[in-house]
Amino acid sequence: MVLGKRSDYGDAKYAGVQVPFSDDIPKTVESYGLCGFDFVVAPLVRESWRPPAPAVLDNGALPSPLERSDCLYINSSQWANQVVGAVSDWIQPDAANPALRQRSVTALKTQLGWAAHLGLQAVVMPPPHAPGRCPNYAGVLNQALQSLTHMALWLTVPLVIPTPTPAHGADSGAAVSAVAGAGGLDGWEAWHQVRAQCDHHNLLGAALLVGPTLPSPASLKRWAGEPVKALLLPTAVFSANKRGYPVLPKAHQELVAAFFRLGVQVVITGEACHAVPPPAAAAAAAPGAKQVTPAPAAAAAVGPGGEPLGFTVTDPGESHPLRPYWEYLCFLFRRLEVVCEQERQEASYRDYLQVPLQPLQDNLESQTYETFEKDTQKYTLYEEAVFRALKDRQAAEAAAAGPRDPFDPANATDAPAASAASTSGRPVVLMVVGAGRGPLVRASMRAAARAGARLRVYAVEKNPNAVVHIQHMLRTEGWSDCVTLVSADMRHWQAPEPADILVSELLGSFGDNELSPECLDGAQRFLAPGGISIPQSYTSFLAPVTTHKLHHDVKAYKDLEHFETPYVVRLHRHYLLAPTQPLFTFVHPNTDAPIDNSRYDSLVFSRDPADGAAVLHGFAGYFECALYKDVLLSIHPPSHSVNMFSWFPIFFPLREPVYVPAGGEVGVQVWRCCAPHKVWYEWALSAPVAGPIHNVNGRSYWVGL
Amino acid sequence: MVLGKRSDYGDAKYAGVQVPFSDDIPKTVESYGLCGFDFVVAPLVRESWRPPAPAVLDNGALPSPLERSDCLYINSSQWANQVVGAVSDWIQPDAANPALRQRSVTALKTQLGWAAHLGLQAVVMPPPHAPGRCPNYAGVLNQALQSLTHMALWLTVPLVIPTPTPAHGADSGAAVSAVAGAGGLDGWEAWHQVRAQCDHHNLLGAALLVGPTLPSPASLKRWAGEPVKALLLPTAVFSANKRGYPVLPKAHQELVAAFFRLGVQVVITGEACHAVPPPAAAAAAAPGAKQVTPAPAAAAAVGPGGEPLGFTVTDPGESHPLRPYWEYLCFLFRRLEVVCEQERQEASYRDYLQVPLQPLQDNLESQTYETFEKDTQKYTLYEEAVFRALKDRQAAEAAAAGPRDPFDPANATDAPAASAASTSGRPVVLMVVGAGRGPLVRASMRAAARAGARLRVYAVEKNPNAVVHIQHMLRTEGWSDCVTLVSADMRHWQAPEPADILVSELLGSFGDNELSPECLDGAQRFLAPGGISIPQSYTSFLAPVTTHKLHHDVKAYKDLEHFETPYVVRLHRHYLLAPTQPLFTFVHPNTDAPIDNSRYDSLVFSRDPADGAAVLHGFAGYFECALYKDVLLSIHPPSHSVNMFSWFPIFFPLREPVYVPAGGEVGVQVWRCCAPHKVWYEWALSAPVAGPIHNVNGRSYWVGL
Repeated sequence: MVLGKRSDYGDAKYAGVQVPFSDDIPKTVESYGLCGFDFVVAPLVRESWRPPAPAVLDNGALPSPLERSDCLYINSSQWANQVVGAVSDWIQPDAANPALRQRSVTALKTQLGWAAHLGLQAVVMPPPHAPGRCPNYAGVLNQALQSLTHMALWLTVPLVIPTPTPAHGADSGAAVSAVAGAGGLDGWEAWHQVRAQCDHHNLLGAALLVGPTLPSPASLKRWAGEPVKALLLPTAVFSANKRGYPVLPKAHQELVAAFFRLGVQVVITGEACHAVPPPAAAAAAAPGAKQVTPAPAAAAAVGPGGEPLGFTVTDPGESHPLRPYWEYLCFLFRRLEVVCEQERQEASYRDYLQVPLQPLQDNLESQTYETFEKDTQKYTLYEEAVFRALKDRQAAEAAAAGPRDPFDPANATDAPAASAASTSGRPVVLMVVGAGRGPLVRASMRAAARAGARLRVYAVEKNPNAVVHIQHMLRTEGWSDCVTLVSADMRHWQAPEPADILVSELLGSFGDNELSPECLDGAQRFLAPGGISIPQSYTSFLAPVTTHKLHHDVKAYKDLEHFETPYVVRLHRHYLLAPTQPLFTFVHPNTDAPIDNSRYDSLVFSRDPADGAAVLHGFAGYFECALYKDVLLSIHPPSHSVNMFSWFPIFFPLREPVYVPAGGEVGVQVWRCCAPHKVWYEWALSAPVAGPIHNVNGRSYWVGL
Repeated sequence: MVLGKRSDYGDAKYAGVQVPFSDDIPKTVESYGLCGFDFVVAPLVRESWRPPAPAVLDNGALPSPLERSDCLYINSSQWANQVVGAVSDWIQPDAANPALRQRSVTALKTQLGWAAHLGLQAVVMPPPHAPGRCPNYAGVLNQALQSLTHMALWLTVPLVIPTPTPAHGADSGAAVSAVAGAGGLDGWEAWHQVRAQCDHHNLLGAALLVGPTLPSPASLKRWAGEPVKALLLPTAVFSANKRGYPVLPKAHQELVAAFFRLGVQVVITGEACHAVPPPAAAAAAAPGAKQVTPAPAAAAAVGPGGEPLGFTVTDPGESHPLRPYWEYLCFLFRRLEVVCEQERQEASYRDYLQVPLQPLQDNLESQTYETFEKDTQKYTLYEEAVFRALKDRQAAEAAAAGPRDPFDPANATDAPAASAASTSGRPVVLMVVGAGRGPLVRASMRAAARAGARLRVYAVEKNPNAVVHIQHMLRTEGWSDCVTLVSADMRHWQAPEPADILVSELLGSFGDNELSPECLDGAQRFLAPGGISIPQSYTSFLAPVTTHKLHHDVKAYKDLEHFETPYVVRLHRHYLLAPTQPLFTFVHPNTDAPIDNSRYDSLVFSRDPADGAAVLHGFAGYFECALYKDVLLSIHPPSHSVNMFSWFPIFFPLREPVYVPAGGEVGVQVWRCCAPHKVWYEWALSAPVAGPIHNVNGRSYWVGL
């Protein structure tokens, strides 16, 4: 039974439970299913099982490594997707004793082979020992991964690994970090060692084992970009509320909620260890709380600490001792904030790589224009920018014409059209360059109506197919008199008169990456002295990022080209290693002589030692744009325009993931290079290690002029 | 409205209609939708539209090639998938007049650009002129195809092209074939010329224009393997039944049904030209026939020739003049035979390439065994084979023991177990080699029970994981006393006693391709003299095949390796250029000394000149297997075992499609090569042209020993 009906949090709605070895798996799945859990984590073999000696019998036969009575037996594939296997805990491929080591390796291979044969979706692996102390374990995992096609290995990773005894810990000092405090080692380091040795294989994921004390929230955030497949939540970390029900401490609640948001499943481990009153008593104690509803209503049934006071969900008669834990997970899941409509629509784009458009080289399809036109927030911002520009012009003209009505109602939202007569007799010449199907013409006409300004509009568009739509709009709206349609490339067109205002929407996810600078430099030829460009300026921003999923998707292409391409992507499971920093800025009109749109800059990002080490997969890019004065259009997280969805961030990958030690620095160099027929970026890492310059001479990716 | 609710015939359930130029496409789509049609084929521009002269204006602007009032205008993508565009008929890129030729090329490019901009799914292209007489047309199409990403071009192809006047036809004699009779040229030749010049691009398909007279049924079959996207059915080819309703001649009915079965859509073209009585009169004339139901019931409402007598479907009030044509298509669609359960389950595998299993190298997953175990028909055949073998042994023993009950009830289906005592005291030793999860053990035990024979079974299996399932079966069934489980490779195991019967299921889609010969040669060491192998023999069969879809899918990998790999595939849209011929045969036990399982053979397939030319994409392979005497197991079409689904055919691709002229021969050479650690096939074409030997030295594909 799912924790809640909402699908906006992916797999998080399915909860699992660790169970003892079972002789009858359908019955086990069914009984825990009645209790609420969607899948079980079951040992692959009996605790007592050990592999037989590897002798070949006289007749060429081999002793069977597994006996039916010793192993998790699944007769039909129908049960396989409700079972996650668990490898025996006694296995120590790095034991000092060679016999135990050899037996461990054989047992590990046998159990993984059996799990793959059964078609299980995943297997939970025992935790690695201290960081750097399990090379043979990593070796066996790496070999196993090569032959797996779909079964995932979930490596158990304690968030904090208890510090080993001094004798063992003496030479592992490097891994002791501020993250876990004096009491332990950083579990992330152990995880990174194993997965780096397994070359970041995509079927290797982490099952995070949550202990009673948590590392700092800042260090926990690193996991957002890692392939965390499950959260193992022992019953022992729950405390009891005043009615005896299991509840989690506040920090643990936030941890679980954070992983729910990333679509990560929770698995309850251990035996029930909370004495819960019988259902009748509980129902009496919390009347009216038999049905937990989403957040607001459920809040009424919780105590001051946010914990439920003792309630039941959908089936008050269910009396399995682990039921209260499942109910508590339901409570946490249903309490999650409701995801807004826009984010739900974007859910299918999460962490999905797209190659940026080349609107200059290619003609866009009607449907692409249609999609972008639906971003009403963006065009409202453009309308506001044109409105402000028109009002400023009116004010300036009024000032020039003498002291007439100096108290100009600049913020009036709907000045009557009749007031147009009160402004200068000459209409304002506004040119929309790159008019597409005409949304900026529409926004400008709305702004003019509000400002009571008379406009003469030129809509310049190079795509002859898009021009047909503008023709249609002009006739439908009755604008044929004041809008002139020009089928031309703005870089070559000779305007019949200078423009007072030049409006364009040529920005890409990284600001200048769709060649707005080059296009507007060409178009500003026909801007009147003192004329206004909307946008006025834009700046790109960059931050180092952990994103295992995207790096894997790029790697899956198996070529250099894809590692040297920036992608447009709705970043979801990612972690910024440091706050963003500004990179390149462009201002319009550009008064430099000669104009040079090539750029170079290097940035250095520093990390707080208390946040621990992290892995770097590339850089996330954003932009901020001043349309006109303080009318800002932004996809930069600190200033993101509300409800605007036209742009996802950009992602610059690195060929190889890079380990960034605790307190380390990330240095990056970025070039914007220009040639007669193309523009491209090159990028390289300078710290913590120097890396190869990506996309030299634009060999893999460029934007055509 | 779909022609019928069944989904087993793919897109065939959607019917279209050609409409005149429309100023208001949503209204047009809606009105024809009410009439029943799911999509319209509409001209992209007005008939009168011609491209403007290609001059650049003084100011750098270009004249717009399209005006809103001249072109098919679609405002929102919502309508785009209900419209197929149609390119103007006047366009002649191969006209003798250079001005017309140039204008045609410009117009074609403009119209295709507009269609792509609108996001249409497909565009119908005018028919090519006589075969070999439209190089410029093919050139423009080929250029356009390079920049398309999803819009398909449907080339109108008349099934028969009227013979050109002698002046033009003098040098195109090669294309005149027996297919179309003296009155015309073979439309397939025109199609092949264009698509071959466009390098078999996957977005180029054929829209077959059906005329009043049809080519021979045998020649029509060629289209099954071609990318036919639609059948254009002019109203003029319909005749009227005695009540005035439009009906098709018998041959046309069969043609439409054949394409429905391949999932091809029908488009009605032309104006209504049948005077249909008003609905009231029709209803009165055919009482009780207001609702057409699938085949059997509907048959009651048709005349002796299979034509409907005048009926209405679901909406008797609909009076659009094209409605009776749509209703007739409904009638034909719903009359199609019901697809059996097995074929429906296989529908998702149709024309889907799979690389064959390597069961010898890899251990199969439990789910794979489970799927194959569901083929009850196959195990029933094995049971019958073991039963016959046991009965023959009993008869032979009885004969050897003297004249005791010579009238042996060999056909008794369930001899009492007690009769076992009446047979020899020594149980029959039966070895199942490659026992998997035990289905052949089960089938053998059933056969023994029926035959009243006592068995001593050895189940030999090399996959230690599968062995666990047999352990389970033995305990559940109580067979532990009579079945010995052996975890070993049959090629190395030393049997404790000789086997009377050796049962195996090691066959692949091509018979020997999963190395059954090599495995059984190893296992026959422990077969007693005179012992029986089940299977006793198997033979592979080959036929040349047209299958555009599969060839494209192989080509999409863009490497040589995939062209040198045989695939397991449920052939659907394919055409065998000639009947199959036997290739390699293997017999067990193999008494040759030394045993040589390598093979070489060459086959020559001849085509009837009346069937026309065709294109060759590769070879389809099948097998026939004698399990025991006349108990046959076969996927060879002429003898396919009923309801057996364990094997799909095999497909050997050729690197390049090959034109096979009418009456031409197809010659092929095939090698089965053996090396110490692998076995592979090589294949090459010897006629109509010699081609490269594929997969030399097994460089791309081999089966590991």
